[in-house]
Amino acid sequence: MSSAQLNRQSRTSMNWALAAFVCAVGAGILGAYGDVALAENRISEASQQCIDCHSVATPAIVENWKKSRHFSVTPEEALKRKALERRVSAKQVPAALASSVVGCAECHCMNPEAHKDLFDHNDEKVHLTVTPHDCRTCHTDEAAQYEKNIMSHAHGNLAKNQLYGAMMTSVNGIQSVGKDQKISVAAPDELTMADSCYSCHGTALEVTGKTTRDTTYGDMEFLKIKGWPNQGVGRLNPDGSKGSCASCHTTHEFSIVMARKPYTCSQCHKGPDVPAYQAYSVSKHGNLYASMEKDWKMDSVPWVLGKDVSGPTCATCHASLVTSIDGEVIATRTHQMSDRLPWRIFGLIYAHPHPKSPDTSIIRNKEGQPLPTSFDGARAAEFLISPEEMEIRKQRLQKVCRGCHALNWVDGHWARFETSLSTTDKMTLAATQLLETAWKEKLADPSNPFDEALERLWVEQWLFYGNSTRFASAMMGADYGVFANGRWFMSKNVRDIVDKIGCLRVQPSNKAH
Amino acid sequence: MSSAQLNRQSRTSMNWALAAFVCAVGAGILGAYGDVALAENRISEASQQCIDCHSVATPAIVENWKKSRHFSVTPEEALKRKALERRVSAKQVPAALASSVVGCAECHCMNPEAHKDLFDHNDEKVHLTVTPHDCRTCHTDEAAQYEKNIMSHAHGNLAKNQLYGAMMTSVNGIQSVGKDQKISVAAPDELTMADSCYSCHGTALEVTGKTTRDTTYGDMEFLKIKGWPNQGVGRLNPDGSKGSCASCHTTHEFSIVMARKPYTCSQCHKGPDVPAYQAYSVSKHGNLYASMEKDWKMDSVPWVLGKDVSGPTCATCHASLVTSIDGEVIATRTHQMSDRLPWRIFGLIYAHPHPKSPDTSIIRNKEGQPLPTSFDGARAAEFLISPEEMEIRKQRLQKVCRGCHALNWVDGHWARFETSLSTTDKMTLAATQLLETAWKEKLADPSNPFDEALERLWVEQWLFYGNSTRFASAMMGADYGVFANGRWFMSKNVRDIVDKIGCLRVQPSNKAH
Amino acid sequence: MSSAQLNRQSRTSMNWALAAFVCAVGAGILGAYGDVALAENRISEASQQCIDCHSVATPAIVENWKKSRHFSVTPEEALKRKALERRVSAKQVPAALASSVVGCAECHCMNPEAHKDLFDHNDEKVHLTVTPHDCRTCHTDEAAQYEKNIMSHAHGNLAKNQLYGAMMTSVNGIQSVGKDQKISVAAPDELTMADSCYSCHGTALEVTGKTTRDTTYGDMEFLKIKGWPNQGVGRLNPDGSKGSCASCHTTHEFSIVMARKPYTCSQCHKGPDVPAYQAYSVSKHGNLYASMEKDWKMDSVPWVLGKDVSGPTCATCHASLVTSIDGEVIATRTHQMSDRLPWRIFGLIYAHPHPKSPDTSIIRNKEGQPLPTSFDGARAAEFLISPEEMEIRKQRLQKVCRGCHALNWVDGHWARFETSLSTTDKMTLAATQLLETAWKEKLADPSNPFDEALERLWVEQWLFYGNSTRFASAMMGADYGVFANGRWFMSKNVRDIVDKIGCLRVQPSNKAH
Repeated sequence: MSSAQLNRQSRTSMNWALAAFVCAVGAGILGAYGDVALAENRISEASQQCIDCHSVATPAIVENWKKSRHFSVTPEEALKRKALERRVSAKQVPAALASSVVGCAECHCMNPEAHKDLFDHNDEKVHLTVTPHDCRTCHTDEAAQYEKNIMSHAHGNLAKNQLYGAMMTSVNGIQSVGKDQKISVAAPDELTMADSCYSCHGTALEVTGKTTRDTTYGDMEFLKIKGWPNQGVGRLNPDGSKGSCASCHTTHEFSIVMARKPYTCSQCHKGPDVPAYQAYSVSKHGNLYASMEKDWKMDSVPWVLGKDVSGPTCATCHASLVTSIDGEVIATRTHQMSDRLPWRIFGLIYAHPHPKSPDTSIIRNKEGQPLPTSFDGARAAEFLISPEEMEIRKQRLQKVCRGCHALNWVDGHWARFETSLSTTDKMTLAATQLLETAWKEKLADPSNPFDEALERLWVEQWLFYGNSTRFASAMMGADYGVFANGRWFMSKNVRDIVDKIGCLRVQPSNKAH
Repeated sequence: MSSAQLNRQSRTSMNWALAAFVCAVGAGILGAYGDVALAENRISEASQQCIDCHSVATPAIVENWKKSRHFSVTPEEALKRKALERRVSAKQVPAALASSVVGCAECHCMNPEAHKDLFDHNDEKVHLTVTPHDCRTCHTDEAAQYEKNIMSHAHGNLAKNQLYGAMMTSVNGIQSVGKDQKISVAAPDELTMADSCYSCHGTALEVTGKTTRDTTYGDMEFLKIKGWPNQGVGRLNPDGSKGSCASCHTTHEFSIVMARKPYTCSQCHKGPDVPAYQAYSVSKHGNLYASMEKDWKMDSVPWVLGKDVSGPTCATCHASLVTSIDGEVIATRTHQMSDRLPWRIFGLIYAHPHPKSPDTSIIRNKEGQPLPTSFDGARAAEFLISPEEMEIRKQRLQKVCRGCHALNWVDGHWARFETSLSTTDKMTLAATQLLETAWKEKLADPSNPFDEALERLWVEQWLFYGNSTRFASAMMGADYGVFANGRWFMSKNVRDIVDKIGCLRVQPSNKAH
Repeated sequence: MSSAQLNRQSRTSMNWALAAFVCAVGAGILGAYGDVALAENRISEASQQCIDCHSVATPAIVENWKKSRHFSVTPEEALKRKALERRVSAKQVPAALASSVVGCAECHCMNPEAHKDLFDHNDEKVHLTVTPHDCRTCHTDEAAQYEKNIMSHAHGNLAKNQLYGAMMTSVNGIQSVGKDQKISVAAPDELTMADSCYSCHGTALEVTGKTTRDTTYGDMEFLKIKGWPNQGVGRLNPDGSKGSCASCHTTHEFSIVMARKPYTCSQCHKGPDVPAYQAYSVSKHGNLYASMEKDWKMDSVPWVLGKDVSGPTCATCHASLVTSIDGEVIATRTHQMSDRLPWRIFGLIYAHPHPKSPDTSIIRNKEGQPLPTSFDGARAAEFLISPEEMEIRKQRLQKVCRGCHALNWVDGHWARFETSLSTTDKMTLAATQLLETAWKEKLADPSNPFDEALERLWVEQWLFYGNSTRFASAMMGADYGVFANGRWFMSKNVRDIVDKIGCLRVQPSNKAH
């Protein structure tokens, strides 16, 4: 303990690599003992100090961490695995970190100089958040890929898009009833925004001051952090990085099993706006998973198609390193989820090629709106990937399909999928044309295209029904694409819009709506 | 067998303790043998007699029971466990029951004098239902807590609330089309009520006569029991008790595993009126459960947070005895579910502090309606728990949170949750004000506030969308609280109500609606 | 290899039995070795040849198949099992097939003369599809039962029903907005139909030509098959058979476990039109399955109620061979799903006795429409099973119930279920009467009763809300039958129809609608 204590003062200004080095020297070089005993012997002194209190203060986190690979494998050992078996992509890690297991201090004291959320805690400098910039010390490639993942920009892509700002206001703002039943809408409060859109998109974390809390160990001082807690995919972190690895790799077990299971994706991709999980769960793939996963190996690296698993989860097709039983690489691991996706099929009015940049707030359509298409469907092509790039991504994805399916299966499926993109776009266009008529007749006010009841029908046409139909088609969950929230509603909705327009026309007050 | 046969006659008028004593003496005192053989040797003669026929008549029940702890542990053994490991809260059990396993007769012949559903069955006196008053023989504390659980009053809380009676009529009554498309509604029939509302709330069981049925063993006489079958949480039992332990502890395996899994709660808490399970399943907690439960220990008593489970189910937070790995009690077991709940967030127009009494039919708002708030949101405070009691319950709940989460996490979460209570209430108030305008203009008839199309929109504002938003907020299942059935619909619905009022105004017939 | 090669030329015109015989002789008679090694020694030469390439071309299929019983058991061995344990119902299988495991060639070269999708593939004659006519070689009874299953006629029952053709057009056809917001609908394209209705109902597979594809082994010629891929229950196969065993027995593991799990049924029976899975999942049965299945034996043949499983899945009640622990047969295996179903409760306007013939396109109501009832509810009785047959089927089903439940439970449940059939029918009748008024007033056009917004409300009354209520009642998933998609909406919808009619009346344009 003494050498570690000695170092506490200096650690705040040192960078972590040095601090950890001192820890590691303090801990000494350990021989190989069995399992938990071995692991416990290889906990750094700094981490052990955390554990000493936190096994009382937050005991379940500590126990949970003891189930993780971080607890049982040192970076040094991880780096010795064969290329395909490695879960650590760094070529090397700082020497001081190499021989301790990855404990509390290794992450929560990492890169102290970058962290605006650094605070004094029992004479240590620790930070609340652990960010992709911290994780990249060992998981270098994944962090780099994730920066190109549109998810990492999920906060700004919403916050900086004025049009979608109007949608957020109309969804989350408190409505008040005025004279003649005129509705006015207040700007949504920050806590509501964090509890809704930004829960998935990520909050902007901001240190706003200090607070004293009554803890197991007496009064202690902590930072007040606006936007906390949050593990959204595009969280703006106090060290300037974006996102949270914990979105999918849940703390503190960090299990690859969890990231590979479809429930993790479903946390954000289940609602009618992004019903990926819903479509998957009525597909043959989802059925295979639900029925047979009991006997699958969900933690193998690499992941062997057919042997480890008899069918895919979200990760299999979109993220994981998958190989054949002979070790042929079918797909390399990626944390840029659009790597295997030519089309973006949700969240916007029409299906379109993926944006070139993960920062979609820079996109402008021909009318100057921050949208990848115009209301008439014309694409803002210069901001979107080329047909050549689309073909490359399609081939990457289809190579996974072809692990199990013959070419004619894959081609037949893809033809249907692209037909669904076209038909859902046409059905959206019909709804858009009707809405534009209503706007012209002043039955609705286009200044915010998302707030009135008629406009909501139009939004549901693409945001719910069009998306649902496309997801159902993409993942062969056909049942979801008809009566669940798909074509039945898409076709009914056009008629509802017609009727609603008819109804608004005969209401004298509506001209002034 | 002979001593048991000897006793059959007298058992009807004896109380059970004595009867069972005779059984037990008949069965003798058993030594300890291995497993199933042991258990089978410790079945009372009375139960063995049941099994002799029922292993043919209803063979799967018998096999199912053989998987239960009731089959393998005697009360005597159960009472010897250390305090934290006990599943039996009685200080002691009647001597006659102590050394037999808990079989058919131990429950279905218990407390015969209290059971109006007692009948002659192969010369035995048995009763169809087993009730909390029977179970409390061994599970004393749980039964006592459950009497204070609002669930135990679920039947009367509905049946005795005239306003909610109007809602049940308008939901379950058959509608007929009269002249000029005027709709009339018949009172709902009893079987429909048992098949809908009272399926969860519990039916009122009532012996109405006898019937002879053709069975495997020839014609036999049984009781006719109105309301059967039912395992609703507030069932009115023929012995005067309320509820059914089998609601959650499914017969005849009675596994604590099942009561702890979220599917059990989801039987009644999944619909849009109480979407607890839906919100949980898109939360990180629900994801942890779904992804990792394969390796969790769901039957440990006490339940060790972090070690046995890496995340909570419904029971963890709301009911179970949970401890740290060091045996510190984080929460004591409770069968009064509101013990850890300051707020009641569903089923009523506005969120409000929990009622003081589990019998909510006694509540009156300032207008004299049987509601915990007025239509304007004012609380019937004298019937609701005090701020002090709310604080106690909040601390009890948050102590579970703090098993895994630091204080700033818990506080940040709670601030969002209470904001959601406030915002959903405001959005409900807007809808209510619109409805009151319509009532004034005679566009709708307030005599039953739940039957007309316009009124239904208003009910959905709080019963569906407000509730959904609150549950999503309470359990960090944010995705459910926006597009799934939350803020999107809550905000759209206000506009739909405005439009509908506009539409009703221009229909000449509506003034006489 | 040489004798197999010798035979390739002649195999196209030979029938398979002979061809396989030659393979088998070539492979020799194998002794018994351990497990995988054994199985691999018993792969026919023809199948081994497939595997040689396909373990590279589609490696996961091969690995997946190695997990199947087809890989580890020969027909000869399968036939030696005791009657109740047999999974193969043929009295005998062709000698040439008996001692090889069931590999690629055994299925994909079976019955070559019947298969219009036969093509030259590496000098072999293989067919893409494997059909019930192929599977019946070993699974004779199942294939015969399936022909009587209404599912096997699912394609034609839709395609040949002109009225439902109008529904498909209005759901899947692209809508265009004309002058004065008049909507016109194009006939749906073939790919959309395959991606929606026919995904479950089955496509009509048709060889339309040849195509050359670039494969791992260079350019190869394949057939172009319209309607591929598809595994719908009523698929029209190139050998004249109907359906696909792979609908439920997913390729290439063909596990009985999967067919017995509810997810398989949910692929097609989850949407609001057939919410069987949804109702099941909130029932006690579904809860038992979800909570306890971890410890159940899902692959036992026969399936012992209570011992292997503590509660039923879809298959338990509707399809599987189930016995008591003493080997008493509670229900015989059936692949005619209506064998244990007196009532048909979904997809049509009113509940009605099951049709006599699986070909429902022959049914005519008194108005000559292809419907089992008239719009007023009158049944086309001559096409429906008799009360006597209904009683037989009810008894078959209830015998499964009685494995776990006493008679009074079963009777009480059934009375509620049949009440729900009656109440949902009455609520549908009310909606129908309102629609007929609208048709008379020319507020809607009856020529296609499924396309206008008002008509859609009517369809939802029975196709969604009536069905949902009935499924909830049938499977004791009461929660689903009230607020989820049941009685709440059924009762609200009648009022919505009234209001919509009122609204249409005041729109001047609507008389010409």
